[in-house]
Amino acid sequence: MQLKADLLSIEAGGPLIVVMNREDAADLGVISSDRVFLRYKEEHAICILNISTEDEPGILGIYGEVKDALGVQEGDMVSVELARRPESIDYVREKINGQRLTPWKIQRIVGDVVERHLSDIELAAFVTALHVHGVSMEEVEALSRSMIWSGKQIEFGRSPILDKHSIGGVPGDKTTLIVTPIIAAAGYSIPKSSSRAITSPAGTADRMESLAPVDIPFERIKEIVNDIGACIVWGGSIDLALADDLFIRIEYPLSIDPLLLPSIMSKKKAMGSTHVVVDIPVGVSAKIKTINEAEQLASDFIELGSRFEMNVECAITEGSQPIGYNIGPILEAREAMETLSGRGPHEIVDKAINLAGILLEMVGNENGKQMALDLINDGRALEKMRQIIDAQGGDPSVKPEDLVPGEYYHDAEAERDGRILWFNNRDLVKIARAAGTPNDKGAGIQLFAKTGDKVSVDKPMFRIFAEKQEKLDNAIKQLRSLRPVEIGEKVGEEMLKKRIRKQTAPSREFILER
Amino acid sequence: MQLKADLLSIEAGGPLIVVMNREDAADLGVISSDRVFLRYKEEHAICILNISTEDEPGILGIYGEVKDALGVQEGDMVSVELARRPESIDYVREKINGQRLTPWKIQRIVGDVVERHLSDIELAAFVTALHVHGVSMEEVEALSRSMIWSGKQIEFGRSPILDKHSIGGVPGDKTTLIVTPIIAAAGYSIPKSSSRAITSPAGTADRMESLAPVDIPFERIKEIVNDIGACIVWGGSIDLALADDLFIRIEYPLSIDPLLLPSIMSKKKAMGSTHVVVDIPVGVSAKIKTINEAEQLASDFIELGSRFEMNVECAITEGSQPIGYNIGPILEAREAMETLSGRGPHEIVDKAINLAGILLEMVGNENGKQMALDLINDGRALEKMRQIIDAQGGDPSVKPEDLVPGEYYHDAEAERDGRILWFNNRDLVKIARAAGTPNDKGAGIQLFAKTGDKVSVDKPMFRIFAEKQEKLDNAIKQLRSLRPVEIGEKVGEEMLKKRIRKQTAPSREFILER
Repeated sequence: MQLKADLLSIEAGGPLIVVMNREDAADLGVISSDRVFLRYKEEHAICILNISTEDEPGILGIYGEVKDALGVQEGDMVSVELARRPESIDYVREKINGQRLTPWKIQRIVGDVVERHLSDIELAAFVTALHVHGVSMEEVEALSRSMIWSGKQIEFGRSPILDKHSIGGVPGDKTTLIVTPIIAAAGYSIPKSSSRAITSPAGTADRMESLAPVDIPFERIKEIVNDIGACIVWGGSIDLALADDLFIRIEYPLSIDPLLLPSIMSKKKAMGSTHVVVDIPVGVSAKIKTINEAEQLASDFIELGSRFEMNVECAITEGSQPIGYNIGPILEAREAMETLSGRGPHEIVDKAINLAGILLEMVGNENGKQMALDLINDGRALEKMRQIIDAQGGDPSVKPEDLVPGEYYHDAEAERDGRILWFNNRDLVKIARAAGTPNDKGAGIQLFAKTGDKVSVDKPMFRIFAEKQEKLDNAIKQLRSLRPVEIGEKVGEEMLKKRIRKQTAPSREFILER
Repeated sequence: MQLKADLLSIEAGGPLIVVMNREDAADLGVISSDRVFLRYKEEHAICILNISTEDEPGILGIYGEVKDALGVQEGDMVSVELARRPESIDYVREKINGQRLTPWKIQRIVGDVVERHLSDIELAAFVTALHVHGVSMEEVEALSRSMIWSGKQIEFGRSPILDKHSIGGVPGDKTTLIVTPIIAAAGYSIPKSSSRAITSPAGTADRMESLAPVDIPFERIKEIVNDIGACIVWGGSIDLALADDLFIRIEYPLSIDPLLLPSIMSKKKAMGSTHVVVDIPVGVSAKIKTINEAEQLASDFIELGSRFEMNVECAITEGSQPIGYNIGPILEAREAMETLSGRGPHEIVDKAINLAGILLEMVGNENGKQMALDLINDGRALEKMRQIIDAQGGDPSVKPEDLVPGEYYHDAEAERDGRILWFNNRDLVKIARAAGTPNDKGAGIQLFAKTGDKVSVDKPMFRIFAEKQEKLDNAIKQLRSLRPVEIGEKVGEEMLKKRIRKQTAPSREFILER
């Protein structure tokens, strides 16, 4: 069947979608969600069908991704045929029915994910089945390998290659901006690729972008790392794990992430990492709630690392409140620069030198933690950070006080005297995002007190920054409807936590960050 | 945020989707798959967001369903705000994590399905979780009740109301066209609502449509049934179970149907049925493979019926080969009319009088099967069928020979002498659909022999009919690549069924029909 291309300026964000008139579809013998095989000049693609009741017959609506795949122009004729059903759907069904998948079958599924042959419905069923039935270490390994094959790999031609990764979920974690220059200052290579925020106020790439560009071409990354030992770039610019982005699209609305391990480890392997420390923050509003869960996850990371000839150690860290006093790209970059300048809060220094210390010990040093602290105190870590900023195109002479947050702000005051008993990380995240993070780099939250600190009625506990008055107003509205800080006399004194009157919907929102 | 409506002539077939420019979305603080709250004049709707990279800022792309919901016109300004996350997503997550859902939570989920507040991803996760964890009888009951509330209900103001339902999956099953007039001829009310084919060559509505219109308004159905006791209409015209259609969209590509029981029983209850016979065909290529599975399903149907004060009995029937000799709307309508005229094949008569007999005995008659046979033999069932055809606007004087299949045909010949050992129903379905069924009413397959019958090399085993040469060619292409009929000497003689040389993908396609 020949149909005339009607280019729709829509992207589905994943699957390749085309839209046919109901009569044409009936004529071809297909229904909505079936697959069709498109042919245009030398190009072809398997697409998923949507049905339009409004379009006239003879027209084929084409989503942005399909246009890119075929190079088709408005009004061109495209040949449309029945497509074979991808066999990976049968393997998805096997997983739904609780079977373990062979590496070959997993490779077919990941391949079809990357080729966009699977619909959102099929992908969601697969991800749900992985979550429900669990993923064996063999499956994790096969998923990781398939994800590596689906993207680019970097070869630095040297060894060791060090890396640090946090599974995320705690706001304000700027540790990477401190660990990376410490490791490079010690003479090791640490090509750090990081992500932008998906649902958090800032990812490492967003923080770094307040200091220098992070969208660095593949070849330039190699040059920088060969030259100065380190970079802090956005992973999205190097296509390390195309499949991963497609899976995250599905995991995020479901607030599940059965692909956490393969997602992280495939990206480390693609960067050629030989020694990796994985940070697992633990806390009630962090991704991992208990030390026991964290230990299980750590053991999986280490086992998976050994299968990829990667030396992996894990650090279980405090994750019950924000890391440091600042949340938001510019505010966090400033706090990181202060910490590298020897003026950081104890907790950030402690976290950074512990993680850097583990890495330094993994490659044969003794007393890595002290070594890391010395590299901060003697200014060499800061000097290395300035080299990284310079190499990526930023201003190497930047001082913390140059990093200025948004001009609009509002102070959140304590409603009573007492001590801060705990923070609700998720409420803080909502307020920071309402204020404009991560898009508005100057938006964010500055804390004046942390857990255990005294606060006084009508005195500010934290300040919300925004770049626009309208967004500050949104953040204030959020602040009034949420409860980001709990104040009491001392922990454990007030026995009634919550009174439940009727069926309430417990919020299970998700801070997805890898 | 105010955005200008750009009406896209696309329907998603389920969720309410709007498309925003990436910058606008960042400004609002939302990402793809988040929900936004739309307000236009007095109307509002919660929609799921897609992101466009091509649209200019300030534009809101609007899918067909959203346009219908809001009544918005091209170029109108629409207010877009952040939407609250529907709490039903938390209940979907509970089901993913293996919890039993309370009736209240199920009602919230079904309500949000009907309001189109859940995305395909969330719906697919829910349906997958129902399939994996199973559905308790309490959940089935709650799903059924919620599905009844989601649609219309018919009140006939009389009792008993009889009904017959097949769980489907076997091609050529025209039994409903025979059972319905038998029951009405016996003086009972049987308002039969039936479905169109989704993946099969013909649904009961498609078969009936060869004889009379089936898209009959709600009020007219009442009149017809009050007048002559029976109708055979398309369920889609009376909106009996809106939620069901939305679930089927998800179940079909996954080839699972955890909602089979609530889907069927909610529609029976909405029709006010008091006595129902459920046909469960069993066979290797039917939906249910073994008698044991069929017995379990039957016990669930009966239990669920009792919870809805509905008297339910089940008939486990032969489903290993097509029912009768004809597949396709017109061919099947012809065979049904022949059977009502006393000239039908033994197997169709046997199935119809057994099912009708069960219904007749359920309402107090003795020897229902003989009673049903008598109603065929004395012509009263045929006369009642003519009344139904007349009432729905068809030609009551139609004779079997007036029902003429497509003019193009091809005979499939036996490749060797022998007996037919078995049919592969799915291959027959593929061939019939390639020939144009169910859309081309004259397309289909006429069998010249059934299981156990002798066939001779180069003599036709069945004839494929089509309305267009091009579709006949498609069907012939399918015929050559498939193996719809297996010929041998006698069953069990040839020991090697299949030789498997390498990893092959077993096809698990699905004939979805309820």
